Amino acid sequence: MKRIQYLLSMVPAGAQVICLSDMYGTINSPNFPEPYPKESEVRWNISVPDGFQIRLYFLHFDLEPSYLCEYDYVKVEANGEELAVFCGREDSDTEQVPGEQVISSPRSSFSVSFRSDFSNEERFLGFESHYSAVDVDECRDRNDEDLACDHFCHNYIGGYYCSCRYGYLLHSDNRTCRVECSDNVYMERSGVLSSSDFPNPYPKSSDCLYHIELEDGFLLSLEFDDTFDIEDHPDVTCPYDYVKIQAGEKEYGPFCGDRPPGKIQTESNKVQVFFHSDNSGENIGWRLSYTSSGRSHCPVPVKPLYGQLDPVQIQYSFKDHILVSCDPGYRLIRDGEELEHFQIECQKDGSWNSFVPLCEKIESRRSRRSLPSILRNQILY
Amino acid sequence: MKRIQYLLSMVPAGAQVICLSDMYGTINSPNFPEPYPKESEVRWNISVPDGFQIRLYFLHFDLEPSYLCEYDYVKVEANGEELAVFCGREDSDTEQVPGEQVISSPRSSFSVSFRSDFSNEERFLGFESHYSAVDVDECRDRNDEDLACDHFCHNYIGGYYCSCRYGYLLHSDNRTCRVECSDNVYMERSGVLSSSDFPNPYPKSSDCLYHIELEDGFLLSLEFDDTFDIEDHPDVTCPYDYVKIQAGEKEYGPFCGDRPPGKIQTESNKVQVFFHSDNSGENIGWRLSYTSSGRSHCPVPVKPLYGQLDPVQIQYSFKDHILVSCDPGYRLIRDGEELEHFQIECQKDGSWNSFVPLCEKIESRRSRRSLPSILRNQILY
Repeated sequence: MKRIQYLLSMVPAGAQVICLSDMYGTINSPNFPEPYPKESEVRWNISVPDGFQIRLYFLHFDLEPSYLCEYDYVKVEANGEELAVFCGREDSDTEQVPGEQVISSPRSSFSVSFRSDFSNEERFLGFESHYSAVDVDECRDRNDEDLACDHFCHNYIGGYYCSCRYGYLLHSDNRTCRVECSDNVYMERSGVLSSSDFPNPYPKSSDCLYHIELEDGFLLSLEFDDTFDIEDHPDVTCPYDYVKIQAGEKEYGPFCGDRPPGKIQTESNKVQVFFHSDNSGENIGWRLSYTSSGRSHCPVPVKPLYGQLDPVQIQYSFKDHILVSCDPGYRLIRDGEELEHFQIECQKDGSWNSFVPLCEKIESRRSRRSLPSILRNQILY
Repeated sequence: MKRIQYLLSMVPAGAQVICLSDMYGTINSPNFPEPYPKESEVRWNISVPDGFQIRLYFLHFDLEPSYLCEYDYVKVEANGEELAVFCGREDSDTEQVPGEQVISSPRSSFSVSFRSDFSNEERFLGFESHYSAVDVDECRDRNDEDLACDHFCHNYIGGYYCSCRYGYLLHSDNRTCRVECSDNVYMERSGVLSSSDFPNPYPKSSDCLYHIELEDGFLLSLEFDDTFDIEDHPDVTCPYDYVKIQAGEKEYGPFCGDRPPGKIQTESNKVQVFFHSDNSGENIGWRLSYTSSGRSHCPVPVKPLYGQLDPVQIQYSFKDHILVSCDPGYRLIRDGEELEHFQIECQKDGSWNSFVPLCEKIESRRSRRSLPSILRNQILY
């Protein structure tokens, strides 16, 4: 008994409460099709599973008419909001009868209340109504962009699920489509990196790690393209999506917004570019070119008499090569051997791997025929 | 093992059979998104509960193209009928790829088959498809008139039910609307009976019994209106709907068709009209007027001298009355009392309930004032 009293305290005193959870059903006024009793209050609380709405319509309606339905009425409510109030006789052509109207619940529950006042002398017959659960097509009806599927939406009865275009993976949020993008290792001395799909919008919910790994002795420089577009925030620094760069001990970024960060001259031969995107936004992303230069410099070598150095630079750094050749009529002589060309390379420690050989006038041709293969090896070093 | 062999005998040898009964799901070619293997045969049998259809569509499609899809293909079948065969590459603009097409099952099951031939050297990736059960709106889609609701149809997810207009009852076939029509007892000496709703079509699935019950001594006559329309059959006598009349021991009918049976002169004071309708048809029905006359006749009485009989008939039968009155200046005298009018009634046995009193000249007015109430009672008999 205590429990019933508690239930009744939620609704007008004396009202009978009927809870319905079937997927369809009929709701009639008390005694229907006989006239309804006076001083009657009934409330039907209808509730179906999430993913469904409820539709209600009337087949028969015959209640005492009154101004603003203040005497007898049928009221439909959802979440404390009044969806409809009806009274009157169907054949009297009043606006307050439901007629062909179908009432839909905003979500998966609503209540129907019937009330009659102290008299029903004209013996109004009441109403007959039907309800049924209908599937919500979340793919069509979902207005909240933050909950919509990133790529494809599949409705089914009672719910929906998302899937992704070929090449993408569904994120654990079951909504956004991420990419697998952390296997990128760049070992060339220069190259180009970009966000996935650039210059189309980059995937959501993705964490991409790009490794640039050159051998010790190089320093990497990065330069972003002018087209740069990463979701940002006017007040907070890059709370959503961002690029971060780790070069040795040093960190650059986070970067976001629509202005590229400019040229970044690192002090490292290894750089990691980390790009994070959250689960919303449609931004173009970024692209960067990287180049490398040597950490140390070798002294500018002295040009041999009767010979040439190529290329001639004001500075030589790690891995730079110089090709040494002699003027016509002269030959390179190294360790007693006659060479056509010779190449030297600037080493990590700032020294050349060899001295520059001398050019000597050709005196005899006795050993020339045996040299080409040796020479070729040295040139192709 | 035996059971599997039996299953396999239903489908091409070597085909793998996968049974799906979920309300939605994904069907991919083997290894998707990796290229599908050669010589592969898979068949998905999808089945959902009655009251649902299945919709299938493709998100990705990439199969080896061939003339009439004779090499690799995806085939959709239902009840042994081919609904679609697909092959080819999505981006090659062939008519044989599914594209945006949605395939619907005619009923609640269908099968999807995939087959690859002895090679997949071009590494076609196969397909990704999604299916879901969708509710059949029986109220909208049911074409079979014999199964449609008579009055109102209510769809719900997975089924439907029927209901009837106010005043009708749903028949046990859960489809047609019958009426409660066997409480009709007619006791007036004449009257009119008709099928329910006449001249609108009569209700289906109804058995109506009309009783006409007059007191013993009357004979009933029935006459049908010219408007007469009861569902019939060209060869069989009234197999669907009919009127039958029972009058004492005698039966009339069954009647049906569009010609009224004519006047029926019964030999009974009690008649039962029985009307049966089956669960289909839209016919107008019937109406009949009944009258009654007495079984026996009373002799025509002699008009009193200085008096009148009303009405004057050539024949008087049971319950017929005659009012006896006197010419001006004369009064009826019966049992020594002076009367203004007197009424005699023909009885069941063919005799009058009283002789006809005499008219005598007025001699005195002594007892006139006390008579009106007595007279009125007699006249109103």
